[in-house]
Amino acid sequence: MAHYPKSPLMGQMMSQPLLISNIIRHADRYFGGNEIVSRRVEGDIHRYTYRDCHKRSRQLASALVRLDVKTGDRVATLAWNGYRHMEAYYAVSGSGAVLHTINPRLHPEQIAYIVNHAEDQYLFFDMTFLPLIEAFAPLCRTVRGFVMMCDRERMPKDSKVANLLCYEELIESGSDRYEWPVFDENSASSLCYTSGTTGNPKGALYSHRSTLLHSYASTMPDALNVSGRDVVLPVVPMFHVNAWGLPYSVPLTGAKMVFPGPALDGKSLYELFEQEKVTFSAGVPTVWLGLLTYVGQNNLEFSTFKRTVIGGSACPPAMMKTLRHRYGIEVVHAWGMTEMSPLGTTCTLQTKHLALPEDAQQALLEKQGHVIYGVDMKIVDDAGKELPWDGKTYGNLLVKGPWVISHYFKEEGSSVLQDGWFPTGDVATIDNDGYMRITDRSKDVIKSGGEWIGTIDLENIAMAHPAVLQAACIGIAHPKWDERPLLVVVKRPGMDVTREELLRFYDGKIAKWWTPDDVTFIDALPVGATGKILKNKMREVFKDHKLPTASNDCRQGDLN
Amino acid sequence: MAHYPKSPLMGQMMSQPLLISNIIRHADRYFGGNEIVSRRVEGDIHRYTYRDCHKRSRQLASALVRLDVKTGDRVATLAWNGYRHMEAYYAVSGSGAVLHTINPRLHPEQIAYIVNHAEDQYLFFDMTFLPLIEAFAPLCRTVRGFVMMCDRERMPKDSKVANLLCYEELIESGSDRYEWPVFDENSASSLCYTSGTTGNPKGALYSHRSTLLHSYASTMPDALNVSGRDVVLPVVPMFHVNAWGLPYSVPLTGAKMVFPGPALDGKSLYELFEQEKVTFSAGVPTVWLGLLTYVGQNNLEFSTFKRTVIGGSACPPAMMKTLRHRYGIEVVHAWGMTEMSPLGTTCTLQTKHLALPEDAQQALLEKQGHVIYGVDMKIVDDAGKELPWDGKTYGNLLVKGPWVISHYFKEEGSSVLQDGWFPTGDVATIDNDGYMRITDRSKDVIKSGGEWIGTIDLENIAMAHPAVLQAACIGIAHPKWDERPLLVVVKRPGMDVTREELLRFYDGKIAKWWTPDDVTFIDALPVGATGKILKNKMREVFKDHKLPTASNDCRQGDLN
Repeated sequence: MAHYPKSPLMGQMMSQPLLISNIIRHADRYFGGNEIVSRRVEGDIHRYTYRDCHKRSRQLASALVRLDVKTGDRVATLAWNGYRHMEAYYAVSGSGAVLHTINPRLHPEQIAYIVNHAEDQYLFFDMTFLPLIEAFAPLCRTVRGFVMMCDRERMPKDSKVANLLCYEELIESGSDRYEWPVFDENSASSLCYTSGTTGNPKGALYSHRSTLLHSYASTMPDALNVSGRDVVLPVVPMFHVNAWGLPYSVPLTGAKMVFPGPALDGKSLYELFEQEKVTFSAGVPTVWLGLLTYVGQNNLEFSTFKRTVIGGSACPPAMMKTLRHRYGIEVVHAWGMTEMSPLGTTCTLQTKHLALPEDAQQALLEKQGHVIYGVDMKIVDDAGKELPWDGKTYGNLLVKGPWVISHYFKEEGSSVLQDGWFPTGDVATIDNDGYMRITDRSKDVIKSGGEWIGTIDLENIAMAHPAVLQAACIGIAHPKWDERPLLVVVKRPGMDVTREELLRFYDGKIAKWWTPDDVTFIDALPVGATGKILKNKMREVFKDHKLPTASNDCRQGDLN
Repeated sequence: MAHYPKSPLMGQMMSQPLLISNIIRHADRYFGGNEIVSRRVEGDIHRYTYRDCHKRSRQLASALVRLDVKTGDRVATLAWNGYRHMEAYYAVSGSGAVLHTINPRLHPEQIAYIVNHAEDQYLFFDMTFLPLIEAFAPLCRTVRGFVMMCDRERMPKDSKVANLLCYEELIESGSDRYEWPVFDENSASSLCYTSGTTGNPKGALYSHRSTLLHSYASTMPDALNVSGRDVVLPVVPMFHVNAWGLPYSVPLTGAKMVFPGPALDGKSLYELFEQEKVTFSAGVPTVWLGLLTYVGQNNLEFSTFKRTVIGGSACPPAMMKTLRHRYGIEVVHAWGMTEMSPLGTTCTLQTKHLALPEDAQQALLEKQGHVIYGVDMKIVDDAGKELPWDGKTYGNLLVKGPWVISHYFKEEGSSVLQDGWFPTGDVATIDNDGYMRITDRSKDVIKSGGEWIGTIDLENIAMAHPAVLQAACIGIAHPKWDERPLLVVVKRPGMDVTREELLRFYDGKIAKWWTPDDVTFIDALPVGATGKILKNKMREVFKDHKLPTASNDCRQGDLN
């Protein structure tokens, strides 16, 4: 934290650092009997309370101290959403160490790279990941012990992993008389690596202060809107940007928490939603796709599910409509990044929008929305000049705020900021009311004749076609226009559509010169560890694709 | 802010102090077109936007700088809820000076004491207060100018106040290119004096940090629950603990703000509620009494009013039921103090309460509720020993948190804290679920035979009697039991009730030994500047009152 000039008259309020341990302590004191329910990797449903969670978190923290984990040391987790993972969240950060959550969908070598880069001292993992651990453990240079998150009976008789510890034994060895230490709120609390599509992953190192401010802000009515009357099921994984902060924001409200474990298929989720009376959930569109498919195929209804926040990638408008109109579920679009803890914007209506016709409301709700108080944003051109908020002008999106990184972990020397602002790598418009809409990633936007074409709009239109399961648009080199769009489509099983039908499908929906120059069909799109489509890989695959418009200029007139 | 040990690994997030100016800047950027509507002392309705408010706040801030108001200087206001007062809130604190809001209901000599104690440099006032200013201006030793909040035409031709300035001229002289300074977030932002019932008023000196954390916390769904779909009318005055923080929390959500000015009668409020489509309001019970009386007498309905937060003193259960059941308005009880910015608790239900029968829900909602995240509380006996949370045991209520004072202004040497906790002076119970209920003020609780009797319960029962308009209970010296309760009642106009009827009214509602020993009737209860009943004055008036139980011990058996 930089130093700012002090007033000759300082406020005379209690000095109390913002610390993560205070959240679970609060949940214990004020909502101690409220439940945390977890579907476990063991297969059963586990129930306990915030009071139990606080007790076991302190036991684990005291065990970590005994293992000689020091303030600032990194401790990794490789686990699903569950109560033990939550205990690790509080025990590690609360004790002053740094919780390093790892995405198990990464390649074992990438995981080893991250573990070594973070210099993790211990690594906690769910038992389903034992084979993965065995694959990369020998590559880890700093890990003193691998802690398998299960009881003694489930520990393997022998294992290739040398220093294997049992989680429940660690908990038992700890003392619940452990008292949370008090320290500077700018101390590091957690570390999360971005799964960059190019180069090595980079770490975002959060602080207790940034986490607490993010928790306060994300709980507000126009953000996640979590109250003590909610039952919250975080589908967003705790191994990826702290499940959008829900392991922190939910306990501070006293809401009941429901963890789905590894069972993210439609059937398992639906059953948990109904059994535990879930009111609120948050996740990426693909998970809702599975859930909605299951519910639709079986003619089911949601009895308690009222609200969902969707982020990670844009929610297809058709899915948003189904959720809102068929099931009466409020859908809030959210946008954020690992580098911003992660929440940046949410899309909720204001009083003046309530009288708008439904299609105008829907159009607004499809945007990524306005910033959560604390974050600021702007759009700039490639030269850094600020662009107007007219809802049309595309620009590179920059953000700042107390839960946005200043630089990546171990890259203190090289600031990523532009004049104090973090460049998100997204391209967006901002309208007159301050509602932001992501139109593309900076590296994916198609630059055609000096103008920018956003691929997300092109993909959304294609996906509204009944025969299209998935669609991705990439720029293909063009002799006259620099780049022109190629639409790559995965058809729905058992359905068919032609190139020409799809191109005609764009008529009247978009400026004519935005229409893709060609369509090609493939079996599946390449996706990365967090489920995002790997467009750089697609550009590589299709780099020699010959656009029909490139061979002669006969369609040139069409392009303007 | 004290220094806490730093971790060897500090978080790598943007360093950004929490400053009040950031709120109005955010409202301008993201909700710039949303309205602030004010009923003015001039009599008309004034409308403008957050963008206008931000512009004029910066103009005013630059004018203050030109008047040589320095960082840390105190600038006072004596004004109703209105847009100019809001501008002063942002201009003064935003520029680094300290906003000192003064309660105009205090005696002129008390105001002069406060002004001198605060060493106010300028004093802004609404024109209705000119006679008051004239009364105490000669007593003010530090004030360099009195700023009348009106335009040039409305300024008096001549005035007894020597250094009288015109607000609108100040604004015009200022520059809207003024940039908010950035400084340490623990710098003082605002000063508010408690209107203590004994001794001189004492100042609570808030910081930018405490104000911003209070704003975040108070906006949450289980606190004030303010969203961009709300239209908020703060009845709570901006001259008293910052109108419960609404001038800060409302702009950060983008909700439309409606200021009632001085017109707090039922008719004026109702008209404003309806015309401006108010959804949410906050105030003390007496204001709702006036509003409900007007609405009831005229057979009116509320078309948009959905939720209210009631604090300052406990909401009579009958009023809460009327609001909830007759008008469908959600009522949230809140409790706080000047010394805690002011919000400490709010009373909202949790999932587990939703299935309770209505009377059990109502009983819960009558409590003061659970702490807002950030605040912690406990109850202790007179020796400081912590008492159980069983919903029955009475104890002195202590609090702590980042928006609770550490000591009073200019009393740095003498800490008011008990082992780091602030003694509220309230007596309360806390139940097993962490719901707190104020049962009395420490100095009002009746100590009978070593046990404590809470006067609030006794008063609520009396007020449930149809012939009782107001009731207050005080302890009267008793030869055997130390103190016994005397009930003092103001009858409803045109209605009658006897001493014996009222005493019988307690039968079965309360432990027999709690029943007052006597009842006396008066025309009006003495109230202080913030509308609270002055029980110390009542004890003085009734100190020689002879309880029937004191003359002989014939009723002794009844008392146990």
